Order: sequence, then structure tokens, then C-alpha cells
Amino acid sequence: MEHVHGLILAGGRGTRFWPKSRRATAKQVLRLFGDRSLIQQTVDRLRPVLPPERIWILTNGHLRDEIVRQLPEVPKRQILAEPAQRNTAPAIGLAAQILYGLDPESIMGVFPADHVIGKPREYVRLLKAALKAARAGKIVVLGIQPRWPETGYGYIEFPKGVQPGGSESLPVKRFREKPDAKTAARFLKAGNFYWNAGMFFWKTSVLLDALRQHLPKTASLLASLPPFGSRKFAKSLGEAFPKTENISIDYAVLERAANVVGLPAGDIAWNDVGSWNAVYELHARDRAGNALRTHTMIENSTGNYVDAEKKLVALLGVKDLIVVDTPDALLIADRGRAQQVGELVKLLEAAGHHHLL
Amino acid sequence: MEHVHGLILAGGRGTRFWPKSRRATAKQVLRLFGDRSLIQQTVDRLRPVLPPERIWILTNGHLRDEIVRQLPEVPKRQILAEPAQRNTAPAIGLAAQILYGLDPESIMGVFPADHVIGKPREYVRLLKAALKAARAGKIVVLGIQPRWPETGYGYIEFPKGVQPGGSESLPVKRFREKPDAKTAARFLKAGNFYWNAGMFFWKTSVLLDALRQHLPKTASLLASLPPFGSRKFAKSLGEAFPKTENISIDYAVLERAANVVGLPAGDIAWNDVGSWNAVYELHARDRAGNALRTHTMIENSTGNYVDAEKKLVALLGVKDLIVVDTPDALLIADRGRAQQVGELVKLLEAAGHHHLL
Repeated sequence: MEHVHGLILAGGRGTRFWPKSRRATAKQVLRLFGDRSLIQQTVDRLRPVLPPERIWILTNGHLRDEIVRQLPEVPKRQILAEPAQRNTAPAIGLAAQILYGLDPESIMGVFPADHVIGKPREYVRLLKAALKAARAGKIVVLGIQPRWPETGYGYIEFPKGVQPGGSESLPVKRFREKPDAKTAARFLKAGNFYWNAGMFFWKTSVLLDALRQHLPKTASLLASLPPFGSRKFAKSLGEAFPKTENISIDYAVLERAANVVGLPAGDIAWNDVGSWNAVYELHARDRAGNALRTHTMIENSTGNYVDAEKKLVALLGVKDLIVVDTPDALLIADRGRAQQVGELVKLLEAAGHHHLL
Repeated sequence: MEHVHGLILAGGRGTRFWPKSRRATAKQVLRLFGDRSLIQQTVDRLRPVLPPERIWILTNGHLRDEIVRQLPEVPKRQILAEPAQRNTAPAIGLAAQILYGLDPESIMGVFPADHVIGKPREYVRLLKAALKAARAGKIVVLGIQPRWPETGYGYIEFPKGVQPGGSESLPVKRFREKPDAKTAARFLKAGNFYWNAGMFFWKTSVLLDALRQHLPKTASLLASLPPFGSRKFAKSLGEAFPKTENISIDYAVLERAANVVGLPAGDIAWNDVGSWNAVYELHARDRAGNALRTHTMIENSTGNYVDAEKKLVALLGVKDLIVVDTPDALLIADRGRAQQVGELVKLLEAAGHHHLL
């Protein structure tokens, strides 16, 4: 695919995967499934469309070394640490600026580093359709057909009667923020509301135009950077980036731009792996519903997730637990509360356990 | 107390305290409460009546080194490893034989190594009363007033109307084996049935007479041993001991001898610490009923016991768990099933995990 580059956004902390997730080992670099980390799987999945030498990664200073280590096939200079923590608009804008500077005809896809997609072949078909629309000058967003009334995601409203799995992009009527439970149920029933999974496609020239129009301060800061690869680039970026606006690309551009289209995906078995419970649900289970990633003895125990590396775990009469053991911390949580692990991390932070974060 | 010696029986495996209890670190050498192991606490508790230099310990080859290490105040030669695993009759007979050889006037008390007694002062008062009866030629057994209808202990039947906490020994009407639930409830209600806690007192001459009468083969094997401390002792013991009968002192002597009396204890807060749940119950708890022996973060969690040494444990939304972490094994059990940890150890054995036993 000529001119096409991929940007993987890998700056998140993912505290809900504590005690495995730490500053230097956030969710995207964890091996939650099989032997490849989530970011490695993301690169693998894109390979039919985007060879590693056209992959770009934006992350933070804590994670860069580990990502460089995990992805030797991606050119090291294309794995960048953001000089400050910002939302997606400045990060995406920066990548667009760099790519436009290297190739004014460049097209980019934006991908989260920490999702899984169970049907990679169907996904590749979609990517190609999305890139086609991008090549035609559209701002393209991938929509995931909702499988339950999720309140944790934003939604894309398509015209009524939209069918999933086509190859044609459709105009987006509206972006909807995370809904309440009642609204989410209505969205699901209506059939024309799709999950916004944070995957976008556009010409870098189109995106930079939109940024200039809708986020001029950030656009101008990024435009003032010296060429990527030049001596002064890192220093200038370090000065300019912290001044950019802390705003998502959704708010900054997608909800405002005119030429936004969406591609309603069929079943690609997408999952954003939002908690240990999602990891449990994505794993194979034994007859008693236990997902055991490491050596575990089970007696009268059902519905548990166990990951304890070099240690035998014995479960006796316990139910629906998340058990994650590391050398310095052990989590035992009710699966139904797996979403609250992030809050636990805040408590740890407040209690001064910085070495465990 | 002239002529008085103490025998601590420390040969048990205590598999219900896995993963802490292993062959070389059985229950009696574990620090389940505070900084002193159960056997150290046993020696400490006897000290007002029995100085360490008159303490004798029978254990097994796996445990002897650790016990020697934990009890530097007890003469090393008095800490013996049994050449074969036998029930209490041969072990007690052996100690009686040795002590009688050293002092024909000797009196001995027999004590399990792995119980706790919450009221040591009252206990010492009882010991003195028991030793007085032993000095008068009786075979004395300590009775513990039952606090619930336990089916896991043997019972001592006293004459009706017996009162706890006296200083006078009373004739034992009968020994009763572990009862079923209904019988245990009847025992509790009747008021003259006491728990047999495995604590006995007698002149060694009296016990050896009883052994000769009721267990002649074992008595004769032990009588044939050369003097303790002589060169040939260890070798002869190694040959004779495996030939002794595998029977408890209760069956072999107490249930058959004529001169058996019992001392009905008042409240000495005795506990045989039969499982992790007993450890939980004997520990101080926070308001949510958690007994946390090591650093633990708690969110919405109640009734848990946590012991994980050099590691932070985080509990989130869990209830009534036993959590015991060691470098190579982690147990997570429902407190109500703590008794079944021993069965789990059998499963481990069957599965070939000998390094974890």
C-alpha cells in the first residue's frame, strides 16, 4: 500500500492490570494472551497492510525501552516518547506532521496498542476499505457493531438501516459520548449506533488541514517543528509538545470536521481488554470455568483466573477470583470487581507504594 | 520439681498448614503466632515447671535440624529423631525407658508440640496438680472442658457432676473415641465429657509397668536397649524401634490401665490449631474481620486471613479467604474448607509435586 503508514498509540498506563501493569510494563507490553504482548500482536495484525518499517509508535519515556526491545522489526527512530502526557490530538497531530514532512502524499492509520481482534483476516479486509476512503480524502473512523449496551465507550451514529461488514464508508451522523445505561440500551436496539474503537484513517494533509481549522494553536506548534531526523528536532519537540492542548482527536476533529465517514465493521471479534475480567473471558476455560495461565491445582473451585508465573497455585473452594501474582505484589479480586483494580492502584499511590506502581 | 522431665512429641507432619508446612518445616516449627514457633512456645510455656535442660523432644529426621536450631536452650542430645514413624505408644515408651534408666524416680509429662494455650498461668497451676497426682503413682490425663461439639477429638468421660478447674484428679470412667455429631452434642450437654488433648503425666516406672502389661512386645524391645548415651544406643534403637507396634498410647495403655485419673481443666484457652481457620480465629482482626499478618491493602473485603511475607497483597471484593503465599506455592482457600488443605497435599503428592511437600 503506497504512502500508507501506521501510528500505534502506546502511551497509556493501563493501571487496571496491576500488579502486572507498572509504569515500565503497562498493559500494551504485557503478554496477556499467548507469548506475544498486546503491542506485538497489534504490529503482527497490521503486517498484511503495513510492514513494520512503516509503523510509528508514540509512547512515554517509561515504556519506550521495553517497546524498542519487544519490536526489533520496527525502526528504533520511529518509536518516540512524548515529552509530556497529552491526549490523542497532539500525538496524532505530531505523527501527521512528521509523516507529511517525509511524504506529502502520506496516508496514516491510527491504532490503539492494547486491543485484541479475534478475526484478523476480516480485519485486514476492513483496513483496506478504510484506507481506500482515506485515499479519497475522507476522515475515516472504524465502527464496531455493539454486542452489549456498553456504557464505557463512545458511539458513532450511522444513518438508519446501516448494515455491518460492508466495504463502503458511510457518512457519520453524529458522535455520541459514553452513554448512560438507558441510552446505551436504546443505541443497541436501534442498530445504527456503533462503538468507536479509536481506529482512524486519513491523508496526513487532510488531518493537518482539519487540525489547523479546529485546533489552530496545537497545529501551529507542530508545524513549527524542524524536519524529523534533524538535529534540533528532539529539543524543539521537548519545548513545543508540552504547550499543545490536552484534548482527544475525537473532540478536536472528528466531532467538528465535515468530511467524516465511518466504516461499520462486521464481526471482527474486537475487544479492548478493559480489565482482568476481559482477559479471563478471552481465555480458554476448563469445565469448571477456570482460566489457568500457570500451574494450578484446583479443588471445588470455579470461574477463576490464575496467573502466577514460577509458582504453583492451589485453589480450594473458591469462586470467580482473579489471582495475579508477581514477585512483589499479589492481587486477589472478585472478578465482578475487576474494573476497580485501577482504584486500588490509586490507593497504593496515596499510601506511598511508588515502587509497586 | 524434682525428678520431673518433659517429653514433647514433635513428629507430626501437619499437612493442613501447607504451603508453609513442608517435610522440613512442619506445623510445630512454624511461626503461626508472633515470633516464636509453636514448639518454641511449648517450651516457653513449660518453663515455670520444667527448665529446658529437662525437656526431651522426639521428632523425625526431616525436622530434627530445624528443632535443634530453634531450641538452643534444650540439650541437643535430648532432641531425638525416631528411626521410623510410629504412633505415640512407642515414642512415649522410649522416652520413659531412657528417663527411667537415668533416674528410676523420674516423673514425666507428655506434651504435643503444636498446640496453643491462651492462659499459661492457669495452665502451670494445672501442671503442678497433674504432677502431684503422677508422683502419687497415677496415670494422669488432662481434660479440656469442651467449648463446642467437636467431632475431631477423643473425649474423657468423668463422673457426673464434675467441676472444671479443680486441683484434684478424678477417676476416668471411660475414654471415648471421636464421636459423631449427635454424640458430640450429647457429650457437650452432659457436662462430664472433656476433650483429650494428649497431655499425660506419670512416673516412668508406672508407665513402663503398664506398657509391660498391655504392650509387652514393644515394652520388651525398648527394655533391651543399651543405656542412653552409650555408643551402641543409636544403632540398637535403629534396629529395635521399627519393630515396635504402631499404636497410640491412648489405645495401648490409657483405655486399659486401672490407675488412670483425669484432671478436668478450667478455662486455659487451649487450642490445637487444627487448620488455617483456627489460626485465623486466634489472631486479632480488623473491623472487617480480616486477620492480616503481612502488608495487605483491603478494598471491600471481609473475614480474610493473609500471610505473604515479603510481598504486598491486595484484596478486592473477596470474603472469608485463607491466603498463604510462599516462594514456590500459593494457597487460596475458602476458610470453611481449611480442613481440606491436607487433602490438597495428598493431591499434590499424587501429582508428583514432591518438591512442594
